[in-house]
Amino acid sequence: MPFLTENFLLQTNVAQTLYHNHAKKMPIYDYHCHIDPKDIYEDRRFQNITQVWLGGDHYKWRIMRSNGISEHYITGTASDREKFQKFAEALPRCIGNPMYHWCHLELKNFFGYEGTLNGETAQEVWELAEKKLQEEAFSARGLIAQSNVAMIGTTDDPCSDLKYHKLLAESGFETKVLPSFRPDPALNAHKPGFAAYIEKLGQAAGKKILCFKDVADALTARIEYFDSCGCRAADHGLDYVPFRKSSPAILEGIFQKALTGSSLTTEEAESYQTALLLHCGRQYARLGWVMQIHFSCKRNPNSRQFAILGADSGYDCIALTQSCDALHSVMDALEKEGQLPKTILYSLNPADDAWLDTLIGAYQSDEIPGKIQHGSAWWFNDNKTGMENQMISLANLGILGNFVGMLTDSRSLLSYARHEYFRRILCNLIGKWVENGEYPADIPYLGSLVEDICGNNAKRYFNL
Amino acid sequence: MPFLTENFLLQTNVAQTLYHNHAKKMPIYDYHCHIDPKDIYEDRRFQNITQVWLGGDHYKWRIMRSNGISEHYITGTASDREKFQKFAEALPRCIGNPMYHWCHLELKNFFGYEGTLNGETAQEVWELAEKKLQEEAFSARGLIAQSNVAMIGTTDDPCSDLKYHKLLAESGFETKVLPSFRPDPALNAHKPGFAAYIEKLGQAAGKKILCFKDVADALTARIEYFDSCGCRAADHGLDYVPFRKSSPAILEGIFQKALTGSSLTTEEAESYQTALLLHCGRQYARLGWVMQIHFSCKRNPNSRQFAILGADSGYDCIALTQSCDALHSVMDALEKEGQLPKTILYSLNPADDAWLDTLIGAYQSDEIPGKIQHGSAWWFNDNKTGMENQMISLANLGILGNFVGMLTDSRSLLSYARHEYFRRILCNLIGKWVENGEYPADIPYLGSLVEDICGNNAKRYFNL
Amino acid sequence: MPFLTENFLLQTNVAQTLYHNHAKKMPIYDYHCHIDPKDIYEDRRFQNITQVWLGGDHYKWRIMRSNGISEHYITGTASDREKFQKFAEALPRCIGNPMYHWCHLELKNFFGYEGTLNGETAQEVWELAEKKLQEEAFSARGLIAQSNVAMIGTTDDPCSDLKYHKLLAESGFETKVLPSFRPDPALNAHKPGFAAYIEKLGQAAGKKILCFKDVADALTARIEYFDSCGCRAADHGLDYVPFRKSSPAILEGIFQKALTGSSLTTEEAESYQTALLLHCGRQYARLGWVMQIHFSCKRNPNSRQFAILGADSGYDCIALTQSCDALHSVMDALEKEGQLPKTILYSLNPADDAWLDTLIGAYQSDEIPGKIQHGSAWWFNDNKTGMENQMISLANLGILGNFVGMLTDSRSLLSYARHEYFRRILCNLIGKWVENGEYPADIPYLGSLVEDICGNNAKRYFNL
Repeated sequence: MPFLTENFLLQTNVAQTLYHNHAKKMPIYDYHCHIDPKDIYEDRRFQNITQVWLGGDHYKWRIMRSNGISEHYITGTASDREKFQKFAEALPRCIGNPMYHWCHLELKNFFGYEGTLNGETAQEVWELAEKKLQEEAFSARGLIAQSNVAMIGTTDDPCSDLKYHKLLAESGFETKVLPSFRPDPALNAHKPGFAAYIEKLGQAAGKKILCFKDVADALTARIEYFDSCGCRAADHGLDYVPFRKSSPAILEGIFQKALTGSSLTTEEAESYQTALLLHCGRQYARLGWVMQIHFSCKRNPNSRQFAILGADSGYDCIALTQSCDALHSVMDALEKEGQLPKTILYSLNPADDAWLDTLIGAYQSDEIPGKIQHGSAWWFNDNKTGMENQMISLANLGILGNFVGMLTDSRSLLSYARHEYFRRILCNLIGKWVENGEYPADIPYLGSLVEDICGNNAKRYFNL
Repeated sequence: MPFLTENFLLQTNVAQTLYHNHAKKMPIYDYHCHIDPKDIYEDRRFQNITQVWLGGDHYKWRIMRSNGISEHYITGTASDREKFQKFAEALPRCIGNPMYHWCHLELKNFFGYEGTLNGETAQEVWELAEKKLQEEAFSARGLIAQSNVAMIGTTDDPCSDLKYHKLLAESGFETKVLPSFRPDPALNAHKPGFAAYIEKLGQAAGKKILCFKDVADALTARIEYFDSCGCRAADHGLDYVPFRKSSPAILEGIFQKALTGSSLTTEEAESYQTALLLHCGRQYARLGWVMQIHFSCKRNPNSRQFAILGADSGYDCIALTQSCDALHSVMDALEKEGQLPKTILYSLNPADDAWLDTLIGAYQSDEIPGKIQHGSAWWFNDNKTGMENQMISLANLGILGNFVGMLTDSRSLLSYARHEYFRRILCNLIGKWVENGEYPADIPYLGSLVEDICGNNAKRYFNL
Repeated sequence: MPFLTENFLLQTNVAQTLYHNHAKKMPIYDYHCHIDPKDIYEDRRFQNITQVWLGGDHYKWRIMRSNGISEHYITGTASDREKFQKFAEALPRCIGNPMYHWCHLELKNFFGYEGTLNGETAQEVWELAEKKLQEEAFSARGLIAQSNVAMIGTTDDPCSDLKYHKLLAESGFETKVLPSFRPDPALNAHKPGFAAYIEKLGQAAGKKILCFKDVADALTARIEYFDSCGCRAADHGLDYVPFRKSSPAILEGIFQKALTGSSLTTEEAESYQTALLLHCGRQYARLGWVMQIHFSCKRNPNSRQFAILGADSGYDCIALTQSCDALHSVMDALEKEGQLPKTILYSLNPADDAWLDTLIGAYQSDEIPGKIQHGSAWWFNDNKTGMENQMISLANLGILGNFVGMLTDSRSLLSYARHEYFRRILCNLIGKWVENGEYPADIPYLGSLVEDICGNNAKRYFNL
């Protein structure tokens, strides 16, 4: 089969039918991403492909580094054209890497480019992109519109005034752009900048924060404010899931210690995090929100480059998961109180798939089918084998038909192609099962199942 | 390929030949299950499909919960017909789940139903089952007989008088129904009910238990009693494998503390468990028994539901394995003394496959080929990918031809269909290797290998 | 497809083309093995197939043990013919084990035997081998020459005078035979024999070792000596990766304690290991060497057999990896100083693949493409699924095209067939991607990529 035909990744007739007649037409609910709502509101435009592709995409930076390219051409002062050249030269060596597929899907879908990108074609792709990016359809809103995106869930600081979400809501822009609540800085009492953040949080909540209870109250206030702006979900990015119960007095002591800038013990940091994680969870439950927890991430391991480039610059790694008990304890603590919100769990370690798929099964309820979800293959696992393995494991141990499906978790407006990638892989997986006689070839039913996973489940789950 | 033909899961000619000419005819040695011997002796009958399918099957309960079904229809007071309806409605969404295959294999094999079960066909399946269940062949013994079961290994408390095993042995029932020794309550000094259990164990052994040595002696007495009743195997269900050596004096102190109902430290609990695990292992070795160890299970994580429904109600999960050293230490301690019994190891975490397959290779001996076994994919892993992965890993790192193969670990008399499922997957795996040129197409030899794995190895291993 | 044709494991046309036109012709750079350079220099000859196959191959010993064969026929006093018979009888049961493939590839490639080995053909294979082994081409050098080996990286003790490497260099033997520096005994202050080893190391370095600094200096001296003899790589075999910083005074105390033969605490052992691992790493970086780190190995778990047979006798196992932080800390500590050498990381636990593939991405540099490598599937993972999974994971998370590829890690001169095995698996993997439309069918480019992975990358990486 030639590369990237219309039946890309669709190895069976059933897969092709399911994709072309069912998956393809579904609007995209991209419920968790990192796009800046300001870019959408201001309808940002890009001058060249380096700006839209290489500006903030640490996946591509990693690839360039793995190809021995100097930082000068990655995050340095080389020209945009030079940077693009270096990336284009690296790409063909990336056989088997999802980047190879994402790039060519994006070039084909958005720019109509049918060739392959490499050092020799870089110039023609550069020129094509430069021309196309001037078209109306290539503004931020244009890209969203041509991708049939029904909803975008951004990732927002509790202190944000959500100005651009409000402006977007008033603007009549057809895609819903909703905030997500990400209170990590308020929970990370052991990380630099905590006291300053608490100051800022107090300002946002309109009340100076003096004690632990004030933090909790401020978070509640911001959660309610976010809710009033259409927020439907929160996100916690944890290195690992903590669970350590402690008394109000102890929490107060930890909080005061952290405020002074003293460094906390691991036990103190965990106690503080646990208390606020549970506090937030209760609020999410009360408001019908979805709680997302991302964990098993080793952040900023390369301290030399961290000092130069800061966080989120392509050095983070998978961490090995040390404990399964803490996550159970978090879930159980909220469940016991009847205050467990809808929850999506994402581990960065793919070896956790089976464990997580059993864990979610222990906290389901009759509020909604699939109340507790194992999130789509995340970050480093967002590739063909990672997505297949996540779905096979989920299917083995739970109900694939209730899966809320794909999200991009991306900083780029071109990443909607990853939903297509996911959908092809989903249809191919189901197609293989059917053509192998493992499920009846009931195309109408399977079509509805595919449509559920590609959009209807998420729409229902997030109350959209 | 249509769903569930006679060549279900058999993708190659070699697989079909191996299954139909070799695997299919083998009697079943179901050496580890949870069927109540009383049901067999009394030849229990079932009124409807809910009784036989949903009565105690926590796999199905999990699926219903994952579909957002209220507990009322799962473990609650809804009628049997209503419960069945809810399950039938959930099933089609379970694409890729082994339950989909098990159910339809059972409906086809036992009830002759060729359709698929869903909300609309639930009524016709209900009626068909109601009629069939009145037939002779659908009593407990009838189901066993029509499944060609040569041996059933039940799971029994050391205090059991094994009355029904004895009655069955005398009854002339053709299938051997042998007890297995499961002394978990005697080893779990850290769990509720310990003192009461020790009292009961003393009564069963005919001597009041006053000290640690008395426990060991009582277990020895019960092991010997079980042996006299045909027992060939023991089973230890551990959350995790402990290993902590301590002196007799310390063990005595721990035991006395536990008897008073005081809660033990982790170290104390591990010391006590270790000592008795080794003690039991020595007895098993002496009598030529098989020691089964199941581990990496997180039990009763949902405390709200545990308070309502108790244990084994569908909330248990996979646990991440923390240590590989303790299991080595247990094996090594017994091996050093020349008292390591035949042993089958089962981890609930599929990420342990490769590790376990190397571990078993370190304790083999010339007593019997494959003295130490990696048990068939257990519980949550008892699905197509889980079984394939377990067998591929075992084949990579040991000798697949010496594998003792499948067991149901089930509470249901219809679960013998899982042996068929396993056999099809085994034949398909071998068939793929052969048709890919990875092993010669020597069908007579492969047929004998398949027959060994499907029954002969287990027969030999358990001295049946 | 019949067994072991010229298209063995090559399931697609693309795979066949890539293998036959590109992979096959590449010379072998076997950069890490355990062949004795004395055997090569003296051009050792073998009397029979047991000597060349079963003499030191603990993979085969494990298989024999797993088949219930008595130690008498494995490491005992049975005749060579008897030992071969027992192995031949076990082999057919090893369906799916790489040993089945390795053995038949070796029989075919070296001995021209086209049949399969089993109990009945053992005699004809024995006789054929006995005859062939007398031929010129079956001496150590003959076997190397007929395998088209460009370079052999042996594994050598820092105290070695490298006499045979020097003699080989002078001899005009076409294959480069270069030493690798393996300083484990100098780093294992917690293991028996440490003081004696330090004595010996001092002699080799020409200066009595009295303090911690002397050890470091002696290692530096030996590294420089090895470098002068053409060494390009070091190898550290760690049970697990330690990281514990401590002061010079503390290190001195630990060293003096260890010299007296006192047993060290875990913390002491880790501190000492860490300091020397970093010290060695700095020297490797300075000299442009490659640092190899092998970890997650449980050594000598069966103490009864260890007492009888010693180390490396087929009892070692995969260990579960406890921590990912220590390895990051080692890498980061050197990177921070600008003294991180080219590094190849190998974990024995295949569940670490994804984690490691992200870790290597955090320490790349513009010194060379793929400066930090995830080593080819090691030891127990050196099988079809292990190699495929390692390459798929590497491709997903890094750049497969920059992979330095296969090494045998073997003690046997016939193991070069494993490079063929690897190459077929590599070509098959790429072929599947191409025929599934996941990469363009650009054969010239893919051919060059395959040639890079099969040899050019290693040649460049090791400065050969």
